[in-house]
Amino acid sequence: MKRRELLKGGLFAGTLAFLPKGVAQGAPQNIPSLGRRYRNLIVFVYDGFSWEDYAVAQAYARRRQGRVLALERLLARYPSGQVNTYSLTSYVTESSAAANAMSCGVKTVNGGLAIHADGTPLKPFFAAAKEVGKAVGLVTTTTITHATPAGFVISNPDRNAEERIAEQYLEFGAEVYLGGGDRFFNPERRQDKKDLYAAFAQAGYGVVRTPEELARSNASKLLGVFSDSHVPYEVDRRFQGVRVPSLKEMVQAALPRLASYRNGFVLQVEAGRIDHANHLNDPAATLWDVLAADETLELLTAFVDRNPDTLLLLASDHATGVGGLYGAGRSYLESSAGIDLLEAQKASFEHMRRLLGNSPDAAQVKEAYRTMKGVVLTDEEAERVVRAIRERVYWPEGVRQGVQPDNTMAWAMVQRNANKPDRPNIGYSSGQHTASPVVLALYGQGLRLVSLGLVDNTHVFRLMGEALGIRYQNPVMSEEEALEILKTRPQAVRHPEDVWA
Amino acid sequence: MKRRELLKGGLFAGTLAFLPKGVAQGAPQNIPSLGRRYRNLIVFVYDGFSWEDYAVAQAYARRRQGRVLALERLLARYPSGQVNTYSLTSYVTESSAAANAMSCGVKTVNGGLAIHADGTPLKPFFAAAKEVGKAVGLVTTTTITHATPAGFVISNPDRNAEERIAEQYLEFGAEVYLGGGDRFFNPERRQDKKDLYAAFAQAGYGVVRTPEELARSNASKLLGVFSDSHVPYEVDRRFQGVRVPSLKEMVQAALPRLASYRNGFVLQVEAGRIDHANHLNDPAATLWDVLAADETLELLTAFVDRNPDTLLLLASDHATGVGGLYGAGRSYLESSAGIDLLEAQKASFEHMRRLLGNSPDAAQVKEAYRTMKGVVLTDEEAERVVRAIRERVYWPEGVRQGVQPDNTMAWAMVQRNANKPDRPNIGYSSGQHTASPVVLALYGQGLRLVSLGLVDNTHVFRLMGEALGIRYQNPVMSEEEALEILKTRPQAVRHPEDVWA
Repeated sequence: MKRRELLKGGLFAGTLAFLPKGVAQGAPQNIPSLGRRYRNLIVFVYDGFSWEDYAVAQAYARRRQGRVLALERLLARYPSGQVNTYSLTSYVTESSAAANAMSCGVKTVNGGLAIHADGTPLKPFFAAAKEVGKAVGLVTTTTITHATPAGFVISNPDRNAEERIAEQYLEFGAEVYLGGGDRFFNPERRQDKKDLYAAFAQAGYGVVRTPEELARSNASKLLGVFSDSHVPYEVDRRFQGVRVPSLKEMVQAALPRLASYRNGFVLQVEAGRIDHANHLNDPAATLWDVLAADETLELLTAFVDRNPDTLLLLASDHATGVGGLYGAGRSYLESSAGIDLLEAQKASFEHMRRLLGNSPDAAQVKEAYRTMKGVVLTDEEAERVVRAIRERVYWPEGVRQGVQPDNTMAWAMVQRNANKPDRPNIGYSSGQHTASPVVLALYGQGLRLVSLGLVDNTHVFRLMGEALGIRYQNPVMSEEEALEILKTRPQAVRHPEDVWA
Repeated sequence: MKRRELLKGGLFAGTLAFLPKGVAQGAPQNIPSLGRRYRNLIVFVYDGFSWEDYAVAQAYARRRQGRVLALERLLARYPSGQVNTYSLTSYVTESSAAANAMSCGVKTVNGGLAIHADGTPLKPFFAAAKEVGKAVGLVTTTTITHATPAGFVISNPDRNAEERIAEQYLEFGAEVYLGGGDRFFNPERRQDKKDLYAAFAQAGYGVVRTPEELARSNASKLLGVFSDSHVPYEVDRRFQGVRVPSLKEMVQAALPRLASYRNGFVLQVEAGRIDHANHLNDPAATLWDVLAADETLELLTAFVDRNPDTLLLLASDHATGVGGLYGAGRSYLESSAGIDLLEAQKASFEHMRRLLGNSPDAAQVKEAYRTMKGVVLTDEEAERVVRAIRERVYWPEGVRQGVQPDNTMAWAMVQRNANKPDRPNIGYSSGQHTASPVVLALYGQGLRLVSLGLVDNTHVFRLMGEALGIRYQNPVMSEEEALEILKTRPQAVRHPEDVWA
């Protein structure tokens, strides 16, 4: 790997306009600057959040809840723009390459955490922040060891090595880890039977596993793991009685702890399951996770108001699924019906699958859709869902691109006829990430005149660096080098289920 | 209709921060200001252009053409943001309500041009500009009488009354009209047999009907109508030998004429068929119309560079179809294949339908897809296209939401299996407009510090007004008033084909 002149790992005050070659890919770069420093940094990642998701949530909040999203207020009053999301070799990124770009300031290939294709480790921004004495927190609705939080603190060639990542978290020693992923900490679930909970407790962490334990804990350092895998969707927590803390409750626990540290803090909050809901083409799961993120955003902006030495940076890492409210009725006058019909959707497909088990019959499927999605399936649609769940026969063939059997469950309730507006007019382009630019927004004192526009996702690294006065340059790899290395890797075609990224 | 204090039709220097009640809908408003005036104004509308379209075109230009889009350069270096697009009563707008919002500064219901639901006419911005002596030009790839250009100059309760709109254009007397729509000017095609061409000629217009006549004309005022209905897609002009001027050639004819007028000019350029291609879920037609728009954008920015008293405002009016390049392969590493496969797409579905006629057989359909889309259909897929064209039996039922038979033609070539990347990994969420925010960008001298962010589409009116020093307020209607009026209108459900909006 050819390297530029760089100071690996060291901190130095460089110019913000410094542009590594590979990153620019010949394109002009927009390199806005904050013009000031902050003590604390909160990075709020809306994972897999597209502008279509934004529009649906904005419409739902206005029309069904009579309120304006905190995100809408932020976009209206503070600097906002967008990030280009492509990874080093792919116009569609997955979450680790997106996290790396933001956290390390350089483009990488998809799949690894804070690392190049040749194994060269990168220093994630939160690791650099820890070196200068910042307390560190990670709060997410995914497994706490998932790509987006992990790529901000540790390096690992395989984003799926979550057992190992849990150990790396212990070594790293952030002050707060809150999310899902019991299977990567619990000795009864880990392959190697190590008891990571005990190890964290021994290292001085309060270890909590339920909302009640979270609320009761007095520990200054926290490991909270609230579910086997990802934290269940907000729609299920809210309407199906699933007992987990909300994202807001987790952040409420994190903030006072982090704020108590003398040198300030860095915190990543991730609304991580917007992405998953979009992979599954599940509009209600997406909507309620966006609304839960919005409640959290309200809490965070209030924190910034009380602590004006804090910068809040909000970004999506990529779009997923792209579920858009589309025009319905003559002159599109009936379009808003799709927003109203969302109100009857009271559970995620994930929850429905749990209830239906592995061998439901068509009547059970129809009943589940009627009571939990507000949709009456035809016999044929119900039968196809049964076959998708029991026999893994997916309909239509096109949806094999997606995550199964959920994408078939989504397909079953798609609007068949625009003349019968009994199903939401929300459509998906796929069950995968897409290439579009996504939201970037800032909230903090003294930012009014910052013009963001369209920036590269690597520029998030530079904005964070400017905010905290932390500057360093990670090694740059060219696209050509990366493609050469990828050629030598086994690229066996796997079932698309494996690429839920 | 309750009206606020307003000066109907008069020009006055008001404050830019003045916010009519209905427009705000309770939401905070971002009201950026230019901070200076200009002599000329060019409004470039990308009709039906979403961020997914942007990403595909950006990737195609970089990867297949080795260049950077003029639009990417503009977004990287000049103020950009987004517009919220909802109309007065619908979260999904159609093009006339979107044009009205930008042109008149107030929200209206879908369907009419510069008019409220109760028939109250609004003054379009270009009409106000004409009153202060600006020359006016309209250039589009749709029929010249289509909603987006028409809503900037005249008022009509029915956007589809294009024969009448052609007459209104004659009365209005803009200096340049270039686009499609022979059927609304030609005495042999008009219902009333009026010869609009003769009438325009008599009023001093040079009337041109072919690219050659356009190039040869010395007339200072121009009516150019180059096709029966909309101007054929760029992909067909470029690769199928269809003889029409490109958008750039039309703008090249318009600019020197408009620039010759003493008091400056206003010009709307519309890349109008990006919308249509997206309605039809035709990725190659979209791509090449975006690339044609980009060539035109290059021409326009060069004009601004030479004429720094000109403001260029670029906006999409809404998203359509939302055709996204989605992740493919393990870790999405094969995602860029979808960009490469676009290169083999050398014709639009519209052109293929013209060639196939009304009763093709399956072999002809397969051959057309193979040679013009680079896709080998299965027998079953080809048979379904045949039935869609011949018998109007649409597949799958879900696509009845869209425009037929084209949406079935699009469905036939959808990627069925992510493990077989022989078709582009581009997916559509519907064949309709969606609710998402869309691009807004500015180009001109002295704009570097303008921070746009997310603004309402009505704010385009205020930016235009500030640019030219033209301020007035159109009557405001509330959503409640509009809904009352709509209740009394016959809202017969029509076949979705009618709602290509």
